[in-house]
Amino acid sequence: MSVTAAQGFTAAGIAAGIKENGTPDLALVVNNGPRLAAAGVFTSNRVKAAPVVWSEQVLKGGTVSAVVLNSGGANACTGPLGFQDTHATAEKAAEALGHNAGEVAVASTGLIGLRLPMDKLLPGIDRAAAELTGHGGEKAAIAIKTTDSVHKTAQVTVGGTTGGGWTVGGMAKGAGMLAPGLATMLVVLTTDADLPAAELDTALRAATRTTFDRVDSDGCMSTNDTVLLLASGASGVVPDTAEFAEAVRTVCDDLARQLIGDAEGASKDIRIEVVGAASEDDAVEVGRSIARNNLLKCAIHGEDPNWGRVLSAIGTTSAVFEPDQLNVAINDIWVCKNGSVGEDRDLVDMRYREVRITADLAAGTESAVIWANDLTADYVHENSAYSS
Amino acid sequence: MSVTAAQGFTAAGIAAGIKENGTPDLALVVNNGPRLAAAGVFTSNRVKAAPVVWSEQVLKGGTVSAVVLNSGGANACTGPLGFQDTHATAEKAAEALGHNAGEVAVASTGLIGLRLPMDKLLPGIDRAAAELTGHGGEKAAIAIKTTDSVHKTAQVTVGGTTGGGWTVGGMAKGAGMLAPGLATMLVVLTTDADLPAAELDTALRAATRTTFDRVDSDGCMSTNDTVLLLASGASGVVPDTAEFAEAVRTVCDDLARQLIGDAEGASKDIRIEVVGAASEDDAVEVGRSIARNNLLKCAIHGEDPNWGRVLSAIGTTSAVFEPDQLNVAINDIWVCKNGSVGEDRDLVDMRYREVRITADLAAGTESAVIWANDLTADYVHENSAYSS
Repeated sequence: MSVTAAQGFTAAGIAAGIKENGTPDLALVVNNGPRLAAAGVFTSNRVKAAPVVWSEQVLKGGTVSAVVLNSGGANACTGPLGFQDTHATAEKAAEALGHNAGEVAVASTGLIGLRLPMDKLLPGIDRAAAELTGHGGEKAAIAIKTTDSVHKTAQVTVGGTTGGGWTVGGMAKGAGMLAPGLATMLVVLTTDADLPAAELDTALRAATRTTFDRVDSDGCMSTNDTVLLLASGASGVVPDTAEFAEAVRTVCDDLARQLIGDAEGASKDIRIEVVGAASEDDAVEVGRSIARNNLLKCAIHGEDPNWGRVLSAIGTTSAVFEPDQLNVAINDIWVCKNGSVGEDRDLVDMRYREVRITADLAAGTESAVIWANDLTADYVHENSAYSS
Repeated sequence: MSVTAAQGFTAAGIAAGIKENGTPDLALVVNNGPRLAAAGVFTSNRVKAAPVVWSEQVLKGGTVSAVVLNSGGANACTGPLGFQDTHATAEKAAEALGHNAGEVAVASTGLIGLRLPMDKLLPGIDRAAAELTGHGGEKAAIAIKTTDSVHKTAQVTVGGTTGGGWTVGGMAKGAGMLAPGLATMLVVLTTDADLPAAELDTALRAATRTTFDRVDSDGCMSTNDTVLLLASGASGVVPDTAEFAEAVRTVCDDLARQLIGDAEGASKDIRIEVVGAASEDDAVEVGRSIARNNLLKCAIHGEDPNWGRVLSAIGTTSAVFEPDQLNVAINDIWVCKNGSVGEDRDLVDMRYREVRITADLAAGTESAVIWANDLTADYVHENSAYSS
């Protein structure tokens, strides 16, 4: 599992003292080649953290030899000095590893608006470099946690591990600010497949578009979201393009589902499927509108199949539909038919964590799935106390 | 105060038995003329309740002789039978009052997706008609409450009440689904000024654009929002256009502020002022994005001046700004300057109910104010239990 499942990668995770509580907070992932190809997708928030600005530049070259990740501070809204801190981080890792700093990506997560304690972070990089191993992936996944209750890893191996096969593995963190354009979400994927940066980019963008970009836990878009895919080529296998894209999508989907399952304060995971849409864009717009409706999210928390709130959310969109043709199912019971009362809402069983909402726009054949969470008193508590 | 402050109006509020708990749930407001001019603004939700569809048609004629309002049921998503119920309500009121049903507006509020108990509502109209008085405005305001903890009324009198003057009064309800395009919000304004429907319409649209349309308690847009302005002409005074527009705006602003002050579960009223914007549209877009950021709303609840969440909300908009020129003040302390750390956040005193956020885009001279509420465990509780 994790970023060391694929051949050619080493990783480490340590407690550098960035977090005051002494838990792991610094991860290092190193690509030992022979290839150093990479692709990246970043937040679409216009207020970007310093490490995002840095790593976007690094990724333009299509080569990444190492990734330094820290929790305990986002290094966002920290001005020119914050950018210098990111630069120094990359330089330090390059020095410790004998790499080129221009090929070292950096990712940070934590509170916005605070400088990182560089007196802790820089020595930590030396220590992490000394602890790099081929099975360090789990420790790395643990070190990037913030309010995550568990670390998240995933893996797909195609063609068997005994020869001729290849692997895509990865790790993720993210528990709040989960929304499109990605979400206080740091993800590193690795593969030993032998592919150039351009093909990695195509596969990664296709995968994130229908996975991480369709996770909308709380409608809040982060300043730090980063998803990287690194290829070592160590398996010597050039995979089929479609097969590789599907493997990347599967790992992203697995990690995205884990993020929703561990979202801050959530008690329900809500799978919103919009069907019968005139276009995929319509389906996504309607899905997001439902996903972000606080009143509906409260109702789901209360195990109340309140389909009226689904309809009021659909009604705020510009999608093609007629109000008197809308159909809504909650856990497969069609509680709303033709925009009005349908099957008995008492038939809906909402005792389990996963809740499925199906919205049929009756306007076409396109569809999309958005994952969201309910809104709970625990979410309020966790996020009203986070920075103190 | 309320809808009977202006001359020429009578009103009543009774318990018709629509609400199972026996509290008042039916209001009647009657314009006794000599003029019967009216204007209306309705929800922009495409899923519109039956009374909205009905009243939009009535208002096209520019004449309203009476308004029937009920709490205890929204009559939304109730199909053709729900529309027949609204029609029957208008017919019944017309019969009881000797009016034309095509000049009777209807407004409903409560749970979506349930038919109204017409066996209770129709006899209630006869009883309400029998109780109409020139000081029934307060009873009418009480009868339209749903989860409102207090009833809301307001009044402006221009030129003295002893002669030559005129009055704008009104009532409002609304405590959840408060967002632009109006919000489970029912408002009836009355005036004894002598003005035709077209002038009422101009004044009402100008007023709602910067008052009710800039209230964003929870980002949720209702299916039932209705704001009506009725003129009796009973004062015999034709007011100055600008003075009248300002009076209507003042009453709307007063009522809008009362809605925020009584929003479901809220512990803080947040005044978000966006300044230095390149356009008013930019200012409103940024203000709404801040108003709807759940993480920020939680932070405000926790009295945490978390300006990083303000910046991350601004960053999701398409407004003109440079991230490193943004400034943010919370309760007049400029905690963020030039996109980075500003004055000491410990200077911010957030103990009081009203919290003022100022976001300076440093891109122009336009501005806008949006009112919002914090996100609390009480909001979650109230809205996870509402329909059960």
